[in-house]
Amino acid sequence: MAAPPGSERDPDPEGRAAARPLLTDLYQVTMALGYWRAGRAQDTAEFELYFRRCPFGGAFALAAGLRDCVRFLRAFRLRDADVQFLASVLPPDTDPAFFAHLRALDCSAVTVRGLPEGSLASPGVPLLQVSGPLLVVQLLETPLLCLVSYASLVATNAARLRLIAGPKKRLLEMGLRRAQGPDGGLTASTYSYLGGFDSSSNVLAGQLRGVPVAGTLAHSFVTSFSGTEVPPDPMLAPAAGEGPRVDLAARVEVWLELVCAHLGLGAQAPHRGERAAFVAYALAFPRAFQGLLDSYCVQRSGLPNFLAVALALGELGYRAVGVRLDSGDLLQQAWEVRGVLRTTAARFQVPWLESVPIAVSNNIDEEELARLTQEGSEVDIVGVGTSLVTCPRQPSLGCVYKLVAVGGQPRMKLTEDPDKQTLPGSKAAFRLLGPDGSLLLDLLQLAEEPPPQVGQELRVWPRGAREPLTVRPAHVEPLLKLWVQQGQLREPLPSLAESRAFAQQSLSRLSPAHRRLESIRPCQVALSEQLQALVDRLRAQAVL
Amino acid sequence: MAAPPGSERDPDPEGRAAARPLLTDLYQVTMALGYWRAGRAQDTAEFELYFRRCPFGGAFALAAGLRDCVRFLRAFRLRDADVQFLASVLPPDTDPAFFAHLRALDCSAVTVRGLPEGSLASPGVPLLQVSGPLLVVQLLETPLLCLVSYASLVATNAARLRLIAGPKKRLLEMGLRRAQGPDGGLTASTYSYLGGFDSSSNVLAGQLRGVPVAGTLAHSFVTSFSGTEVPPDPMLAPAAGEGPRVDLAARVEVWLELVCAHLGLGAQAPHRGERAAFVAYALAFPRAFQGLLDSYCVQRSGLPNFLAVALALGELGYRAVGVRLDSGDLLQQAWEVRGVLRTTAARFQVPWLESVPIAVSNNIDEEELARLTQEGSEVDIVGVGTSLVTCPRQPSLGCVYKLVAVGGQPRMKLTEDPDKQTLPGSKAAFRLLGPDGSLLLDLLQLAEEPPPQVGQELRVWPRGAREPLTVRPAHVEPLLKLWVQQGQLREPLPSLAESRAFAQQSLSRLSPAHRRLESIRPCQVALSEQLQALVDRLRAQAVL
Repeated sequence: MAAPPGSERDPDPEGRAAARPLLTDLYQVTMALGYWRAGRAQDTAEFELYFRRCPFGGAFALAAGLRDCVRFLRAFRLRDADVQFLASVLPPDTDPAFFAHLRALDCSAVTVRGLPEGSLASPGVPLLQVSGPLLVVQLLETPLLCLVSYASLVATNAARLRLIAGPKKRLLEMGLRRAQGPDGGLTASTYSYLGGFDSSSNVLAGQLRGVPVAGTLAHSFVTSFSGTEVPPDPMLAPAAGEGPRVDLAARVEVWLELVCAHLGLGAQAPHRGERAAFVAYALAFPRAFQGLLDSYCVQRSGLPNFLAVALALGELGYRAVGVRLDSGDLLQQAWEVRGVLRTTAARFQVPWLESVPIAVSNNIDEEELARLTQEGSEVDIVGVGTSLVTCPRQPSLGCVYKLVAVGGQPRMKLTEDPDKQTLPGSKAAFRLLGPDGSLLLDLLQLAEEPPPQVGQELRVWPRGAREPLTVRPAHVEPLLKLWVQQGQLREPLPSLAESRAFAQQSLSRLSPAHRRLESIRPCQVALSEQLQALVDRLRAQAVL
Repeated sequence: MAAPPGSERDPDPEGRAAARPLLTDLYQVTMALGYWRAGRAQDTAEFELYFRRCPFGGAFALAAGLRDCVRFLRAFRLRDADVQFLASVLPPDTDPAFFAHLRALDCSAVTVRGLPEGSLASPGVPLLQVSGPLLVVQLLETPLLCLVSYASLVATNAARLRLIAGPKKRLLEMGLRRAQGPDGGLTASTYSYLGGFDSSSNVLAGQLRGVPVAGTLAHSFVTSFSGTEVPPDPMLAPAAGEGPRVDLAARVEVWLELVCAHLGLGAQAPHRGERAAFVAYALAFPRAFQGLLDSYCVQRSGLPNFLAVALALGELGYRAVGVRLDSGDLLQQAWEVRGVLRTTAARFQVPWLESVPIAVSNNIDEEELARLTQEGSEVDIVGVGTSLVTCPRQPSLGCVYKLVAVGGQPRMKLTEDPDKQTLPGSKAAFRLLGPDGSLLLDLLQLAEEPPPQVGQELRVWPRGAREPLTVRPAHVEPLLKLWVQQGQLREPLPSLAESRAFAQQSLSRLSPAHRRLESIRPCQVALSEQLQALVDRLRAQAVL
């Protein structure tokens, strides 16, 4: 193995190297040449990045990915090797001056406005507004979509699961192995945390992004023990540090007989390899012992073995931190396990044992999570993997990045499909709230219009409606914040933990109707009269 | 912008940096401590990585990801910062000797067998067999799952789409913006190509992995032009290089009048901004001009503008390379567009014009692809994004990595769910074929058993069956190849293009029944009598 011993500096301390300037669609590059050849590389242009419908059939989405976008923009430079590769796929007679232009390219003239991470985002309201020289802001399309779209999708998915579970259950993301490769997994762990999960199994997300990490043991650990192994040091000192060390395995055998008698089991029933594994784990983690109960049989083996080890640890002043179930009917088993924990706690007078947390996992989706967290459930911790990171109900948010203005002039795409039409012009966006802080609607208007005034009546055009609507907002919040101005960061970006807290605050403002996971009434978005008039005018001009 | 100009060496020339040793679940690390504390770090163990069911309800899957796994293994070393991070999440009184062990860890004692990339893989047959010291092969679980699972899933998805489209249609992967972040996109592009796509829009996949890249222009390019722009150089030389340069825009206006008269349209109907965009693109790419037809209206604007530019280019000896449609009924429009191309080619006596390729895109899934590639369709090129990279029918292959032997002794997990039981023991796998080369079944047997012999009768136990079956194979192929022995690569890994060719060869051997995309009969996997006896024995022992 050729790799040198591990003491070098990390060249990519946040693990963002996968996003490089060439992480883009080839048509962005061919269009760059087209713009350049037409003398338009430096034309000022503005693009908006948004989604068309809230994901998963719900009424809300969380904005995420801004931080990654800003990092990407600020580091954006094409290396010589990048330019050489582009030269190899463009026509051989391409003007060398174009490649010189690419070599000098950066984002020092790019300005970015956007929703703070963790904000509620509405369909058609820009998550990002990106303006700057036409050639470079066009090149940014694919990487920005790639960085925002999945981040926002998985954050929203996590938020839905958090709403289902309620604030008290602990939710662990454990989908790394089911994600789209390494960085897919890192992105999933980061933004599941933003959306409301408590922790992740993904160690790299802990190291690079500060996500709290959690995990104990798998079936392979349990099945790797046959019971014939001899631990080099079976002795454990008491938790308080004083008193003689004790042979833990021997004490466990004593407790096992008592436990089996209490449960009416033969002392041969519990698998000895499983018990050896539990003892080994307890020796390594006496303060954090968790029993994985279902490698062989929960009732006849996993549970009695766990109880014997937990009681032996208890004698020494340690408290087991929980049990985990990974197959079968998890709700039913949690009830049964809790029952046994209660009677055993009472029988041996160890009150803490009855409330050790029960953790469950095994392909848990929204429906199963609702069942597992229903009133009276004995489940305390839920691990969610596949259905969180792959978002099977809707595995893509379908964000788009559309040109809305060039040289200050509005642009609009009509297409054969009304759903794919764009909203022209450089815009501002405001959230209008009622007197109780409830969400009335999100308003899109032209950038030059005065902001809506609190308490003043306003005629707006809900998207898709044929009639205007009159609203009188009690509160008005501007939605789009200036983050990067001409390449310069205007203010520090919130940390992941801050964005996570902001997301929970955002979700708490959702009305009960919008909080519903299958919504009949998505958040309303409306256009100002001036913006609606511009849309009508451009449409009429194009369809002569 | 602080980044230095781009001339430094690429620290990650294949873009694999996202896979690092800490890209793993925390429980792998806690178990590592458990094994170490129990004196078992160096015990010899063997794990198998496999999936339980063919994805998408079909009867086949393609193996992929081996190359990434081998690279990962060979580079596997924990850096000081990694070990420090692990120390921060493990108990504070953890023995420092454990961290010294981690610092010295590598894969120099790890051996890997597996299916070559592009092979047909069956449920329960190992994609990878990984053996070596228990502690390190346990640590590898999550990264190997992460590297194999999505790669195999998306390769299989691409193969299904290729089977639907048939060998002649050109298929372009364009899902980068819909993938799970940057590396998700790179993985998707790489393995879609392996599965049978012709090219990708993803430039980075071209640069780092050698995937052919393709792309022309987007709606934003078209809508960015109003028609008032003045190109700095509107002149174009003839294709053959001889003769005077011509003002392309002026010639286009001449042709537009002729085209509109031919089509019965007013010459004001085609959008002048769209036409200016087409001219600009043609000036940059005279040999590769493609018209994107649906920014405004295909019949009244996009198509006549395309024809005017294509005919003006034609005068100079250039041939347009195609048109693209991105909205509406793509099959119907392709017919209509082909009709106009034919009458226009005849009217102006430019025969090549009638057969310019028609490319389509817009949320194309398996059903729509089948419609678009039916007999008589005029569609030549299909771009697939979301439904290829997100695999919405089944966004995870659900691979697992299970312990099968420790110290040469078989291990088995029973669990509360028969589906999650494992097959014990170190194994060999063979594909048994009939006289016509058709697939009879894949046979799993214990490593020490003699291989099945051609022409000899064999009693085997199909998985899940209660009765054995007798087969007489006409051909026998060993499935698992030795790739890495004690950390040393045994032979060069096939290139991506070689694996792609091998995948097409593998798929061509599928019987019509297995080629069906909704299968009633998945590939059969059977156990040898000895392996079945071992399963029965271990199950009986555990359920005393």
